[in-house]
Amino acid sequence: MNEQRATNITWHETTPREDREALLGQRGVTIWLTGLSGSGKSTVAVAAEQALIRSGHAAYVLDGDNVRHGLNQNLGFSPEDRTENIRRIGEVAKLFADAGLIVLTSFISPYREDRDRVREIHEQGRFLEVFIDADLATCEARDVKGLYKKARAGEIPEFTGISAPYEAPNAAELVLDTAAGTVEECVEQLLTCLRAHGLLNS
Amino acid sequence: MNEQRATNITWHETTPREDREALLGQRGVTIWLTGLSGSGKSTVAVAAEQALIRSGHAAYVLDGDNVRHGLNQNLGFSPEDRTENIRRIGEVAKLFADAGLIVLTSFISPYREDRDRVREIHEQGRFLEVFIDADLATCEARDVKGLYKKARAGEIPEFTGISAPYEAPNAAELVLDTAAGTVEECVEQLLTCLRAHGLLNS
Repeated sequence: MNEQRATNITWHETTPREDREALLGQRGVTIWLTGLSGSGKSTVAVAAEQALIRSGHAAYVLDGDNVRHGLNQNLGFSPEDRTENIRRIGEVAKLFADAGLIVLTSFISPYREDRDRVREIHEQGRFLEVFIDADLATCEARDVKGLYKKARAGEIPEFTGISAPYEAPNAAELVLDTAAGTVEECVEQLLTCLRAHGLLNS
Repeated sequence: MNEQRATNITWHETTPREDREALLGQRGVTIWLTGLSGSGKSTVAVAAEQALIRSGHAAYVLDGDNVRHGLNQNLGFSPEDRTENIRRIGEVAKLFADAGLIVLTSFISPYREDRDRVREIHEQGRFLEVFIDADLATCEARDVKGLYKKARAGEIPEFTGISAPYEAPNAAELVLDTAAGTVEECVEQLLTCLRAHGLLNS
């Protein structure tokens, strides 16, 4: 580490992603799930993570549970904070993909511009957008967290789909209709998509 | 995914960390390197990452290159921004440890309080602090990036070790003196420490 020894150092300045990917036997990628509250993003993400792990792939889910209460605990729901929320998640997802993992993100991410910016910071083929396309009526009927009821009662301002816009993707790599298919079917479609992109080993 | 089917869902709400760790055959942990600019944090971190990968461990380095220009690009060097910088890195490291990886962070992180806060958000045994303890004279003599020269010339305000404090750890799990040992020796000491904490497979 001193100046003389430094001339003999052969370490890379950074470790090539390929070294991590060779160990894991897979390619790192961000799978970005977007859709309304109650559309089934987290259910699909967690089920897909488990299916991936079962088939030997290193995977991880970023969602409200582990991000909103940690990294983004100092962000609210103003337009600026929503944008910063998605920006940070996008950067963290990129780090996970760089680490060689298949990272699934589960956030409403209602604005096309915010999602496109996340796509742009990723290398080509390292970002797949998945539109969880359940219609509003289905999501509202589920209302797992009781949020739609509160939104309709005016207790939650700027609730996506009710009082704030949701901008559906124009060119998502995959569209999953969770109102029409089971979780298992949706996960199978997602894995088929990953396979088609050369991201799975089997 | 509809209400009737939902009663049959057996998916976990979140995937237990143990499932990811079983696949990777290791325990997730944050290895927090702290020390002066030029102390050799990044060199040790990258060399350790490569040694870990060679021995079959999934590892990743968070450093200025992949964090300051991405996640924390909207932060400067004010005291508040430095604290927020370390807070975000700590939260991201925690996510990586939760994903099952051995994550090495390479940041000066001069304030004890900031580092202790990162330790606190981690579970017991999931955070190891490594003090890269090269003396100031050695770091300044190396001056790989020419920063000390600029700091002495007053061109960089609040430069750690020159015009801003560095608070050395009181109870780091490991102290590495990069002025006394080679990179290889330091990495071997680090691996021995990880082994002693039951974090390596061999």
